[in-house]
Formats: sequence, structure tokens, C-alpha cells
Amino acid sequence: MGLRDRFNKLTGGTRFVVDLASTDLAILVETKVIFICTPIVAILPTVNQLIPFLNPNTILTDVGSVKAPVVDAIAPLWTNFVGGHPMAGNSDSGIEAAQTDLFVSKPYVLTPIASTPLAAVAIVEKIVKRLRAKIYQCHPQDHDRAVSWISHLPVMISGSLIAACQSEDNREVLKLAQNLASSGFRDTSRVGGGNPELGLMMARYNRDELLRSLQHYRHNLDRIVDLIEQKNWVELEQQLQSNHAARSHFVRE
Amino acid sequence: MGLRDRFNKLTGGTRFVVDLASTDLAILVETKVIFICTPIVAILPTVNQLIPFLNPNTILTDVGSVKAPVVDAIAPLWTNFVGGHPMAGNSDSGIEAAQTDLFVSKPYVLTPIASTPLAAVAIVEKIVKRLRAKIYQCHPQDHDRAVSWISHLPVMISGSLIAACQSEDNREVLKLAQNLASSGFRDTSRVGGGNPELGLMMARYNRDELLRSLQHYRHNLDRIVDLIEQKNWVELEQQLQSNHAARSHFVRE
Repeated sequence: MGLRDRFNKLTGGTRFVVDLASTDLAILVETKVIFICTPIVAILPTVNQLIPFLNPNTILTDVGSVKAPVVDAIAPLWTNFVGGHPMAGNSDSGIEAAQTDLFVSKPYVLTPIASTPLAAVAIVEKIVKRLRAKIYQCHPQDHDRAVSWISHLPVMISGSLIAACQSEDNREVLKLAQNLASSGFRDTSRVGGGNPELGLMMARYNRDELLRSLQHYRHNLDRIVDLIEQKNWVELEQQLQSNHAARSHFVRE
Repeated sequence: MGLRDRFNKLTGGTRFVVDLASTDLAILVETKVIFICTPIVAILPTVNQLIPFLNPNTILTDVGSVKAPVVDAIAPLWTNFVGGHPMAGNSDSGIEAAQTDLFVSKPYVLTPIASTPLAAVAIVEKIVKRLRAKIYQCHPQDHDRAVSWISHLPVMISGSLIAACQSEDNREVLKLAQNLASSGFRDTSRVGGGNPELGLMMARYNRDELLRSLQHYRHNLDRIVDLIEQKNWVELEQQLQSNHAARSHFVRE
């Protein structure tokens, strides 16, 4: 591949999505806002690499899916930092996967802290609004607790379903279960059978909140087991009805 | 509604799906095969009601989603009984919900026991084949254990996810979680937020197998919690990879 081809591949080429590209970080001195779109593990090293080249007015923001450890690490290094988490996307990547309306009506969480300049938050918000995303603002810890409930906990309980089914030691029953599995199993096991690297990242970076939600989850599961053991069908039905009603607060179908 | 309208509503009227309808059970004396399509709780009372009117050659079969308690109850009363479980359908009901191809390529489990006449099994199989369903034959207990893994256990673990999320006592975090929930939460919570009566039926009629699969599940979940507590990322990643690989044996996407 020639230099021009490599440049086009990296930058989107004739799509005109890049005005200026370089490996020389000195070009960043004029930049107003920088979006750091690396995996969480690379955010801090990236910021450390950029800092010597930045104008102090430059605003940094990131797109990491866990916020407290990122904000705790970056805020002391760069005042004009606004933690962010756009909750959209799919498993595709690269310029070919670009979608104009990817963020429309999707949540985009910003997690400023007491020391974050309001002007920096306002500028990031202005950009996010143009994507037509739904903006939420909260403390980094509140973000991490909320995504543990609705994203990281589901991965662990869904994965444990697959592991438990695979543990069936009667080979005929296991084969039958694999043959009979349909939409209920497919949906309940989907996130648990997803990208192992993402699951690991959730556990590493959101460990405390994930452990907390797992403890609550076990408590709720133990209660269900107790009700079934005690044949307490009245309370079991009440719990199932309560689950049915509560789901509509999370899922708009 | 006049008598003709009521008859049409009950029988499908001008759809020509009914040749003869009556509330007089004496018409059953000529019947070769009877499909009992009631909720599980009504199967035994229905069979007891029909027996005085049946020719001994008549084959009975049912469509209950738990098999051992049904077969244990009916086989001693009627030799020509073949337990069955067609695994297709949706939440609609009544003649308006009828679909010609409902059973095509869907599992249809038959659970004959040692005393079931082979001729009776062959006749039910012949009818099921015309529906183009995938026929499986197994012991009633093996059926109940397999469906506990892939259908009844998922309902309980998925419901516990909803209950655990609702237990968040910080109202702002709960509201945020409800706002941020997307496809991962939607899929993982779907069967747990479903029809409470169905969930209760699974627990009542498949209690022993469901409790067994719940114990295995708790064991697997506890292992995940331990790995995260110990920061054993190597083994956690192996487990997530193993879940990812195992899912393909259950789900053909």
C-alpha cells in the first residue's frame, strides 16, 4: 500500500471527514476540544503524552464506559477535562462503520466534578447536542453505579447462566437443552456470551460497584430460591408481578 | 351476541377449521386422537372428565410445558397417553392468532414411558411430522431438567435482575439507571418481566428441577464474585471466553 492509500485508509480518504492529519503532536496547540476515544486502559497514558503539546485552554473529554477512575486520574492533571460516556454503537469499528445518526436519541452522560470549569462543560454539551444525543449530567460515581446495574451486572448474571447450563453432567440432558434452547435463552444469554475483553474491562474498572450490585442480586435470587423451597406461591407470584411492572420503568418498547 | 355469532367466535366460523363442535362429550366416542391444550393445572381434571366418554383405542396427548407430573398423573389412568410439548407460540391467543406455519422447524418433544404403546407414539409422531416440527423423544424427567436450564432458570435469574435494580435506594441513581438502560438490559430482563402466571407455573410444576438448576447457577455466580473480589483477571477472562464459546452450542444465530 502506498503512502496516499495508507493515509486514505487511516483518515477516511475521499469522505472528507479529516481536514488535517499528522503524527506530530505539535499540531494540537491550536485545538479547542480533544475527544480521547481509546480503551479505558490507554486514556491516562494518552493524556500524559498529549499534555506537553496542549494550550491550557484546550478542553479534553473522553468516551470511557466507566467514569470515576478516569475522572480521578485525569482531573488533577488537566483542569479543562470533562468526563463523558456516549452510550451508542455496535460491534463494528473503523471509518467504514461510521453512521451519521449513530448518537441520535441515545444517552450521552457527562460527569463534571466541582473543579470542572462550567465553560468547558458548556462547550462539550454544545457539541453533543449537535449529535442529537440525550444529555445526562451526574457525578462519576453515580454514573458507575447506574451502569453497573443496567450494563455490567447483566453481563455477569447472563454469563453465569451459560456456565451453569454447560455444567450439566448428564450428556443427554445437555444435548437436549442445547437443542431446545430458543428465544428466551437466546436473549437472556446474549450479553453474557459477548466480547470477553469488554466483560473483563467492566470488572476491572468498575469492580466496587459491580461487586455491590452482585451482592444485591444474590440477595434477591436467594429470596426467590427460598420462596420456591417453601412453596410460598403467593409471595412468589407477587414478586413476579412486581418484576413485570418494574421492567417498564427501564424498557420502553 | 347471537348463538351463531358465539359459535363462529368459538370455532373460527367461516375459516372452516372445525367440522363438528358440541358441548356433549358423547361425540368423543369416535375420536382417534385428542390433544388436551389446557393449562397444566387443568390437564388431570380434563382427562378425568373425558374418560367416561372415550373409546379405549383413543390416543390422548397434551401440550403442557412440564412433563413428569403430567405423565405420572395421566399414564396410570389412560394407557394410550403420550406426553407432548410443542415449543412454539407467542403471547397471542384465540382463533385470530392461528398461524399455518407456527410449528415449522420448532421443537416438539414427546415423552413416552416404558408402558406407552409404540403404536400410540407413532400416530402422534405422524401428526407432528405434518406440522413440520422437529421431533425429540426423551424421558419426562430429562425433558423437565432440560427446560429448567434453558427456559425456567432464565425466567428466575432475569426476574431477579429487575428486582435487584429496583432495590437501589439512591433515587437519583435508580432514575439514571432507568434512563440509561438499553438493549443489554432489555434482552437480559425480557423473560423475567414476562407473564407472572407462566413463571409461577414453572416453579410449581417443575420445582425440583428448577431448584437444582438454581443451586448450580448460584455456584457459578459465586465463583464469578470470588474472581472479581480476588482480582483474578486471568481466570475471569478465561471464564468469559468459555461462556462466549459455549453459547454457540445453544444459540444458532
